[in-house]
Amino acid sequence: KLQYGMLGAVSVIFGRCRRSAWLVCKRTQSHSFRRKLDIRGIYPPIATPFAQNELVDYQKLDENLEKYSKIPFRGLVVQGSNGEYPYLTAEERVEVVHRVRQRIPKDKLVIAGSGCESSMATVLMSEKMAQAGADAVLVVTPCFYRNRMDSRALIHHYTRVADASPVPVILYSVPGNTGLDLPVEAVLTLSQHDNIVGLKDSGGDITRIALIIHKTRKEGFQVLAGSAGFLLAAYSVGAVGGVCALANVLGHQVCQLEQLCLAGRWEEARELQYRLIEPNTAVTRKFGVVALKQAMEWSGYHGGVCRPPLQPLSEAELRQLQHDFSSQGWL
Amino acid sequence: KLQYGMLGAVSVIFGRCRRSAWLVCKRTQSHSFRRKLDIRGIYPPIATPFAQNELVDYQKLDENLEKYSKIPFRGLVVQGSNGEYPYLTAEERVEVVHRVRQRIPKDKLVIAGSGCESSMATVLMSEKMAQAGADAVLVVTPCFYRNRMDSRALIHHYTRVADASPVPVILYSVPGNTGLDLPVEAVLTLSQHDNIVGLKDSGGDITRIALIIHKTRKEGFQVLAGSAGFLLAAYSVGAVGGVCALANVLGHQVCQLEQLCLAGRWEEARELQYRLIEPNTAVTRKFGVVALKQAMEWSGYHGGVCRPPLQPLSEAELRQLQHDFSSQGWL
Amino acid sequence: KLQYGMLGAVSVIFGRCRRSAWLVCKRTQSHSFRRKLDIRGIYPPIATPFAQNELVDYQKLDENLEKYSKIPFRGLVVQGSNGEYPYLTAEERVEVVHRVRQRIPKDKLVIAGSGCESSMATVLMSEKMAQAGADAVLVVTPCFYRNRMDSRALIHHYTRVADASPVPVILYSVPGNTGLDLPVEAVLTLSQHDNIVGLKDSGGDITRIALIIHKTRKEGFQVLAGSAGFLLAAYSVGAVGGVCALANVLGHQVCQLEQLCLAGRWEEARELQYRLIEPNTAVTRKFGVVALKQAMEWSGYHGGVCRPPLQPLSEAELRQLQHDFSSQGWL
Amino acid sequence: KLQYGMLGAVSVIFGRCRRSAWLVCKRTQSHSFRRKLDIRGIYPPIATPFAQNELVDYQKLDENLEKYSKIPFRGLVVQGSNGEYPYLTAEERVEVVHRVRQRIPKDKLVIAGSGCESSMATVLMSEKMAQAGADAVLVVTPCFYRNRMDSRALIHHYTRVADASPVPVILYSVPGNTGLDLPVEAVLTLSQHDNIVGLKDSGGDITRIALIIHKTRKEGFQVLAGSAGFLLAAYSVGAVGGVCALANVLGHQVCQLEQLCLAGRWEEARELQYRLIEPNTAVTRKFGVVALKQAMEWSGYHGGVCRPPLQPLSEAELRQLQHDFSSQGWL
Repeated sequence: KLQYGMLGAVSVIFGRCRRSAWLVCKRTQSHSFRRKLDIRGIYPPIATPFAQNELVDYQKLDENLEKYSKIPFRGLVVQGSNGEYPYLTAEERVEVVHRVRQRIPKDKLVIAGSGCESSMATVLMSEKMAQAGADAVLVVTPCFYRNRMDSRALIHHYTRVADASPVPVILYSVPGNTGLDLPVEAVLTLSQHDNIVGLKDSGGDITRIALIIHKTRKEGFQVLAGSAGFLLAAYSVGAVGGVCALANVLGHQVCQLEQLCLAGRWEEARELQYRLIEPNTAVTRKFGVVALKQAMEWSGYHGGVCRPPLQPLSEAELRQLQHDFSSQGWL
Repeated sequence: KLQYGMLGAVSVIFGRCRRSAWLVCKRTQSHSFRRKLDIRGIYPPIATPFAQNELVDYQKLDENLEKYSKIPFRGLVVQGSNGEYPYLTAEERVEVVHRVRQRIPKDKLVIAGSGCESSMATVLMSEKMAQAGADAVLVVTPCFYRNRMDSRALIHHYTRVADASPVPVILYSVPGNTGLDLPVEAVLTLSQHDNIVGLKDSGGDITRIALIIHKTRKEGFQVLAGSAGFLLAAYSVGAVGGVCALANVLGHQVCQLEQLCLAGRWEEARELQYRLIEPNTAVTRKFGVVALKQAMEWSGYHGGVCRPPLQPLSEAELRQLQHDFSSQGWL
Repeated sequence: KLQYGMLGAVSVIFGRCRRSAWLVCKRTQSHSFRRKLDIRGIYPPIATPFAQNELVDYQKLDENLEKYSKIPFRGLVVQGSNGEYPYLTAEERVEVVHRVRQRIPKDKLVIAGSGCESSMATVLMSEKMAQAGADAVLVVTPCFYRNRMDSRALIHHYTRVADASPVPVILYSVPGNTGLDLPVEAVLTLSQHDNIVGLKDSGGDITRIALIIHKTRKEGFQVLAGSAGFLLAAYSVGAVGGVCALANVLGHQVCQLEQLCLAGRWEEARELQYRLIEPNTAVTRKFGVVALKQAMEWSGYHGGVCRPPLQPLSEAELRQLQHDFSSQGWL
Repeated sequence: KLQYGMLGAVSVIFGRCRRSAWLVCKRTQSHSFRRKLDIRGIYPPIATPFAQNELVDYQKLDENLEKYSKIPFRGLVVQGSNGEYPYLTAEERVEVVHRVRQRIPKDKLVIAGSGCESSMATVLMSEKMAQAGADAVLVVTPCFYRNRMDSRALIHHYTRVADASPVPVILYSVPGNTGLDLPVEAVLTLSQHDNIVGLKDSGGDITRIALIIHKTRKEGFQVLAGSAGFLLAAYSVGAVGGVCALANVLGHQVCQLEQLCLAGRWEEARELQYRLIEPNTAVTRKFGVVALKQAMEWSGYHGGVCRPPLQPLSEAELRQLQHDFSSQGWL
């Protein structure tokens, strides 16, 4: 019997497939082998810079990408919530992914957000993202008809998408935006699908995260923390990485936190984790992507404005944001 | 003397503009005149029939429209929540509106849902809807970044859309789907815009509805109940109509309820209202558009399946739905 | 077959029992007769004045009661949420009810809040309230273990209380405080109990209120609006009165609204209703009992401070409160 | 400068005061010394056994206490949410604490829940609990008027209680029951009070817990996890113990998890943590104290029934509960 995880009796065989490591793990129930894309590591869910005319500013995007390429990220998430994907056209979503793939090193993963409200559109978008060079797609829970988005509907949706997608699928639960938590029972069922490799969980319920990891280990299923605010805690219960908005601003520090956790240097990790909470909260729960882009500007990246209706921060919010970074020594 | 609304010193002169009545009302604060489209009456927010291949079935749509044309509706709402608009492509959304405009009598209003997440896309969609023949656009609150969708952001959004839209704008607050209530203070500000003529409120908070009506009367602003469940109560506090999912199934009855309210026959109205609550709840809050389409099938309309991930009702839900209609004598 | 309500074929026989009218209605299912206490009308849920030492100031209470006696209220609710009952000891709760019963005219009903968290304590408190002279008890939903307070638990609780109570029981649903809505199905079951005469519904969901009235009419069950904010709407769907915090301040006006509704003078009613919404919201949802007591001071009643931890209004809140009354001409 | 915590440069001087260790730490801002009760360790929030007549069964309580005395708990929490304190009279609450203090070893702490809705009653109850032998009081956030329970009100409440209490105060935030999270800013202010020694946080938001620990370290403030579900994660970010319902059933195992965390044996800790999540969730969020008492029965303790309105588990719930324990090897 073979188990996957970070805990004890693990046997992992790495293969190489294009630019990504693959995990080979024995499937307990079927005695067959399958390989799941190894997605361990830290990812910034990159922001989309806009020009004054509200169009995507690819020049600024390139400059950000060049800087990100020098940080030990495992890859980039393109079109997560911080990419303002709901504000982009279908064509823009694909084009940005295409651009990112061209500009970053081949050994970095590009994970593309391909979620749409309908299953049909999500399948189509996943195919286009794969064609644009994505190594995997990140599929947010559809949520407009949230009263009907029960386990049955979500299992149906993700199964259809995963069956059709040319690249592996990562589940994405972000209740702060969608008002919907992907049910644990749905995650457990979906973890058995060969083309579903993991979950980005942005809800931050550490009990839920630990339970999911516990119940999906034998499937080679990988859980990524959806925020730097609970990254240490997530590692402590067996998560294998994080998709962290804050990594757009403090990329080296988030990667350092990862390294401390992986090395078992928990006390140092804790001290660093503490100092990341307030800035992280500021660019996520408290003020969101508008603040993230502002903090990027302060840190030498191109952030700029968001597409309306997202509004710039007020004066008071701006002062609070600055304080949340400077009080921890980051500005 | 003709009165609009319930407030005294209003002067209203009706003109005709193409196929719709226009309201001319003296603007108290500016002494200038403006005209607001009269949207009083009952509207079904029509469902979109799909074929087995999940594409829009225009033939079935036509057959529904023919039946709706014989009911004394003021018009149709196309691409409301019950039209599954989040599951349609931009092209499909416009095409369906175009088809509806061609097939229904000229004196019926076509109100087209043109809301998108970004202001830019909503402006563009509103223009296309006007070109497709819409008499007005219904603009849902953007909601993905709901923590940032405060009054400031929403006033900015709706002002930009209303400034640009070739046809009048109707605000649309549907917290059950969006998790967001358009704040009263934003409604009051927006009611002063010449190209914003009213609000569809689906939240059902009758105190809020009454307050909005009270505070916007001098603007010629018109409030439509967003559900048949509180239609009588909405009329009792001054609403001028309703966009009612249930009208897709029991169109004559909802129009009859309107007539009883307008005639001041409150006791008869109450008896009819009572009998509409359970079926209405079944096709809205409880089971949603899936149930609406099922009930349409039972009543001689084409409903059919929804696009996935929306799933058919379970056996138990189906029985409950049937009971909610039959116990009130509608099946 | 005999039906009770305001609608159509009603046969009501009034008896007299001490100071209250009784309704005799034929029970459809059992063919026996029962009598339910007639609770139609307007009630202020009175505030509890405290002295500087935080003890109940009975002198000030008496002076308020004397003024309330001259207003055409049907009675008073003592120990509702606005009576700060959770801040009173068991002895104080009973003593205040006793005092009120002695000081107000015999033909006014005294409805005493007797709800506690446990069934045992609620039974005991209901007995004491009856001994203290209450004509009926108002029993709030227990809520601390709200996840377990399903229909089964609540039906059990209310049945036990109603079986034991020497005076009739009125159900009380106030989700704003308890985080719990008494389920409609529980209300329907409980409406059949001979000693349960009605419901105070403070949630304000008018669809729910109408449905409850519709489904309980044959039981002689009476629904009271729990707020002046939706009093007209509640009457429009068949409610028979209201327990309105605002009636502590604007008692005559709330009674006038009742009279206009009962007389079918809906347009006048609507104009008055409009002017009551903002002051009502200020003393309920927005600022609560602290504001209610402040507004009482402004209107010639004794309000005074609340027991801590309830804090006085801030300067900004005070200004807003004043504006909410003065803008509608009440100050 | 002296700092308290588990991290790095900590200087701790232990004194002895009756049966508990005291922490002496230099207060940075005042240069004075103060001593805070050391509350590190694991506590079961004990259940209250009732006889068939619904009265407290002290005999059964004694038998449970005897068993608990053999488990390496730091002490017991009496009258937490799992003690059904809202269902006990004031006299019963004190009497149970008195009994527990008499029956358990002197070196075990007795932490007594003394929270009431009003500040006045909480002060009085805290005094009585101290007289009954409590070493500290656990004070839940008042919550009935939750809209007004902002930081200002809660700081006022806790300061008054802590000023008056003869024994140290522990803050208690349990949003699942109260619908209210004690705001972080209130915790930070209150952590500076000499007689407030810590916080029991049952919400489980690990980011919030880490932030509170980070910001209160120099005050000698101690944070206890309010549930076994996130105990490891809480230790990983600096918590010093836990008040865990599950410890009523699996006391040795929860203490073992504590020891593994303190010893830095994180991988073993993780394996044990995993196996505790489902049983923990079953006796807390999912089914609550009713299930806790049932599981106690299965494990050789006296649990018995809850006071109504809490109802016994349904057959289906019972099976699920059993599965949640047996699937992890605990039954």
